[in-house]
Amino acid sequence: MYIGRFIITASTRRWALASALEAKGLGVSATLGPGEAGIEREISIEESPDKRPGYLLDAGHRDRKELNYWLIARIRKGVLPTPTASAFDAMPEEMAQYHAEVKDTPIQIFGDGYEEIVERDGRAVYKIPRMDGFCYIETKFGVARGIAGGNFLILGESQATALMAAEIAVEAIREVPYVFDPCAGGVAASGTKVGGKKYKNAVATTNDAFCPSIKERVGESKIPPGVNCVYEVFVNGLNLTSVERAMKVGIEAATTVAGIKKISAGNYGGKLGKILIPLKKVLEMH
Amino acid sequence: MYIGRFIITASTRRWALASALEAKGLGVSATLGPGEAGIEREISIEESPDKRPGYLLDAGHRDRKELNYWLIARIRKGVLPTPTASAFDAMPEEMAQYHAEVKDTPIQIFGDGYEEIVERDGRAVYKIPRMDGFCYIETKFGVARGIAGGNFLILGESQATALMAAEIAVEAIREVPYVFDPCAGGVAASGTKVGGKKYKNAVATTNDAFCPSIKERVGESKIPPGVNCVYEVFVNGLNLTSVERAMKVGIEAATTVAGIKKISAGNYGGKLGKILIPLKKVLEMH
Amino acid sequence: MYIGRFIITASTRRWALASALEAKGLGVSATLGPGEAGIEREISIEESPDKRPGYLLDAGHRDRKELNYWLIARIRKGVLPTPTASAFDAMPEEMAQYHAEVKDTPIQIFGDGYEEIVERDGRAVYKIPRMDGFCYIETKFGVARGIAGGNFLILGESQATALMAAEIAVEAIREVPYVFDPCAGGVAASGTKVGGKKYKNAVATTNDAFCPSIKERVGESKIPPGVNCVYEVFVNGLNLTSVERAMKVGIEAATTVAGIKKISAGNYGGKLGKILIPLKKVLEMH
Amino acid sequence: MYIGRFIITASTRRWALASALEAKGLGVSATLGPGEAGIEREISIEESPDKRPGYLLDAGHRDRKELNYWLIARIRKGVLPTPTASAFDAMPEEMAQYHAEVKDTPIQIFGDGYEEIVERDGRAVYKIPRMDGFCYIETKFGVARGIAGGNFLILGESQATALMAAEIAVEAIREVPYVFDPCAGGVAASGTKVGGKKYKNAVATTNDAFCPSIKERVGESKIPPGVNCVYEVFVNGLNLTSVERAMKVGIEAATTVAGIKKISAGNYGGKLGKILIPLKKVLEMH
Repeated sequence: MYIGRFIITASTRRWALASALEAKGLGVSATLGPGEAGIEREISIEESPDKRPGYLLDAGHRDRKELNYWLIARIRKGVLPTPTASAFDAMPEEMAQYHAEVKDTPIQIFGDGYEEIVERDGRAVYKIPRMDGFCYIETKFGVARGIAGGNFLILGESQATALMAAEIAVEAIREVPYVFDPCAGGVAASGTKVGGKKYKNAVATTNDAFCPSIKERVGESKIPPGVNCVYEVFVNGLNLTSVERAMKVGIEAATTVAGIKKISAGNYGGKLGKILIPLKKVLEMH
Repeated sequence: MYIGRFIITASTRRWALASALEAKGLGVSATLGPGEAGIEREISIEESPDKRPGYLLDAGHRDRKELNYWLIARIRKGVLPTPTASAFDAMPEEMAQYHAEVKDTPIQIFGDGYEEIVERDGRAVYKIPRMDGFCYIETKFGVARGIAGGNFLILGESQATALMAAEIAVEAIREVPYVFDPCAGGVAASGTKVGGKKYKNAVATTNDAFCPSIKERVGESKIPPGVNCVYEVFVNGLNLTSVERAMKVGIEAATTVAGIKKISAGNYGGKLGKILIPLKKVLEMH
Repeated sequence: MYIGRFIITASTRRWALASALEAKGLGVSATLGPGEAGIEREISIEESPDKRPGYLLDAGHRDRKELNYWLIARIRKGVLPTPTASAFDAMPEEMAQYHAEVKDTPIQIFGDGYEEIVERDGRAVYKIPRMDGFCYIETKFGVARGIAGGNFLILGESQATALMAAEIAVEAIREVPYVFDPCAGGVAASGTKVGGKKYKNAVATTNDAFCPSIKERVGESKIPPGVNCVYEVFVNGLNLTSVERAMKVGIEAATTVAGIKKISAGNYGGKLGKILIPLKKVLEMH
Repeated sequence: MYIGRFIITASTRRWALASALEAKGLGVSATLGPGEAGIEREISIEESPDKRPGYLLDAGHRDRKELNYWLIARIRKGVLPTPTASAFDAMPEEMAQYHAEVKDTPIQIFGDGYEEIVERDGRAVYKIPRMDGFCYIETKFGVARGIAGGNFLILGESQATALMAAEIAVEAIREVPYVFDPCAGGVAASGTKVGGKKYKNAVATTNDAFCPSIKERVGESKIPPGVNCVYEVFVNGLNLTSVERAMKVGIEAATTVAGIKKISAGNYGGKLGKILIPLKKVLEMH
């Protein structure tokens, strides 16, 4: 997966958040649309490029051209129109495989010749006139080849149990750097299998083997007795170590919740190999 | 503009909100990408189709085919994968010009044959198996030909003043039914003009006449003395009356803020004619 | 219980909320400190006395003098110092048994002679100079003799299950008028019994009969098999009908959650008589 | 001022926040009621005593006995009843002048003999049975003699300007350790003078010299021409260096906002000496 990583800042934290949510939107893992995106974490004023409150985001796509397009589009739609918001590259230099240029994109062209390249925090940034002053957007954004599809399934005795475990896992994962989770609220209810059984031409369909509600209708259900709900947590990241670290932290957090019966894993594209982690082994990881 | 209007519900208000933000994302007015979208308002449990907390959303596009595509895509990415979330049509029957069908879209096909059509709250809905139970999505969503590009510009003596006025306007507009505001946080900082002066082939560029920061560099700046910041509020809606009502309410709210010098309006596509409302006239509207 | 009901408004919803949270604080039901308080619900700009965003709050105390003192203190500490905030009476005229006067309290005296009584929305209000303009506080607040201690216990198979059921109950109760729930987040984890077994002089101690974690150490545990967690939802209100309506709505919402084994009720002061509602009967209420 | 500093944790961040807001409530600086309290900042899971999300809070009072009482009362009302919440001491050992004991308070007594002292994260904590499991509260909380009343006044050309500057200052101050701001949303609109001019016996009344709205009625108004609104930011802290650092950071942040005319300071008890910082000097501090 190609991944771009960037910081959105604004005068106040709530405007930075409004901008980040807009830029992240429609970024759930799916087989259509504008690729994946997630808010990695809040950043402090201290560590912010322009000493304003901000958020760290990642955008990812399996196709390089598509990534370049949507990385720019997310900043164009989420940052450029939003009061006081600006955007800066956040890809560590050593991880960048190439840089997506803002030149000749709808961001630079929006300036209509009034835009300038200036220096800010040691970076070359476009200074683009906006009705509330200027919008600052870095001239290029580093892109890495990262890891997609890290994931684990939380099998719980009830919906509430599985959901609380998933929430706690997501909060724990948020503290691991270089990873992001594209799901709304960090949790996926719709497990996906590649292709379809009945709909042969389908790109992706429901992961029926892990749907407790149709257990009896599915040939090879993987739902053990006592499990009534499954949630999935996805982890994408800049490198394998970070993804594995996030999965470990997430699974450990999820299994602190009473009523979790098993942790398993999907196997979507074979990228991470087939992972099946029994609860017992997970608990031994502590 | 073609507009679809729908309700997202979930077990708890925060999961309904997570779903709504994801589905609304990348919906800022712009000349690229997945069209426009906005959260119209929160809905009570009482008025909710399945008696769960929810939000009312609108999606719009000037092209009918694109609207159909992105309306489904927003639900596919924002609702189907999100824990406990479901989606229902919210277009008043008498306003619907046609219905976008879910049949044969990635939503229905996701069911892989396990999906069924059932009745819920007097509606025909797809019941699609998901790992946490079932996702309910109405079989068709009404689409109206509505009004796009209602807008007004708030000219303030300072950034803080214009921004507070814009925020207050947006909160007031949220109480007017049948309208939505596509901007992140409801406010646009990037005024837009059609085409470009320097970049002749550009689709849309900065509204330089309303950028105080480059007042001296612009031939025909429309920034009066004492104005240092401009914000814009957009209003799309199902009919002209609602859009006008929302603009009146928004302008009245904005002008309660000390330091607002003038309310003006852009003129993007000629749809609403040229509107120029001096502050004096606005105050007489009270 | 003596109950005062009031509205806090501010220029923006987030400042109204900041004010409301401060005024509500330390209002959890307990046998010490500043009595009880809760945010009843958000109010729209349309229904607001000064056409600004706001919240409806209630403060309660079993002692009339204490209620008068803390009602004023909550407004003095939560509203008077908070940017743009004002406070208005919200007790329906026909329910008020008497009015708590602001005259000669720390609110009026704060004006140091600069305060005036003016009319606003048909009300007599103090207009008190503040560094950001004026604070408007109604001259008197109606107090009713209401109902305290409406409550029900949610017995769940796990913590996550009981907690989600409690959250859903609280969201449903919020739509019932004239009631408030004093707990943080609306849910109580610390069941209370009057007096103590070991600590004879204690005013209130843990409701050991409903603590699953010490089931074996308690003589007459009321924890049925399969129950591992209990949460309690309190409902105070201006009249019995509203409290009963809220309890019905809350219990019905809670029991939609899979894994809830039983709904029961505490019996704290005998005020509401002994209520014990088996899950079966609750489900029949639908 | 005597200050206690403690951490509240819970299973999820939102329950930790609900608990923290309840415990912080009614903590605005005022001359009545339960003293002062503030949320210092969010803490990460990594730095949390029980590896759960949490918040760092401070409670302060000029009177030692009162501080002890309300420190315990805030934990008793904000933490003990709140789902999954626990509380731990956060006073650095070298700063503690003494410790407030939980023994024989309503917290310990609530346990009714079922409470035990256990070790957790190297601390001695009460393990108190609650209906959702156990509540963990450290056996003693360190108290320091800190600094109260650090403050600065933000004089702006308009309300919106002064308020945005205050918000930005508060966000910046939140990153300075060992300080807290007791105001709702961090900002005070009600400047206070000791005693009264007209009401001779008053403890505290409106700071009329800094109220632009009554400028003409006040003998010695300190409002310069062009100033129409004033907000105040308070900073309490464990030591003078931290308070000064926070004031510097806050003033620098506030003065980045266009339309701020002057930064001044109140002088409430002479504790910090008379501070008057002209804007020019502040800008030189950069």
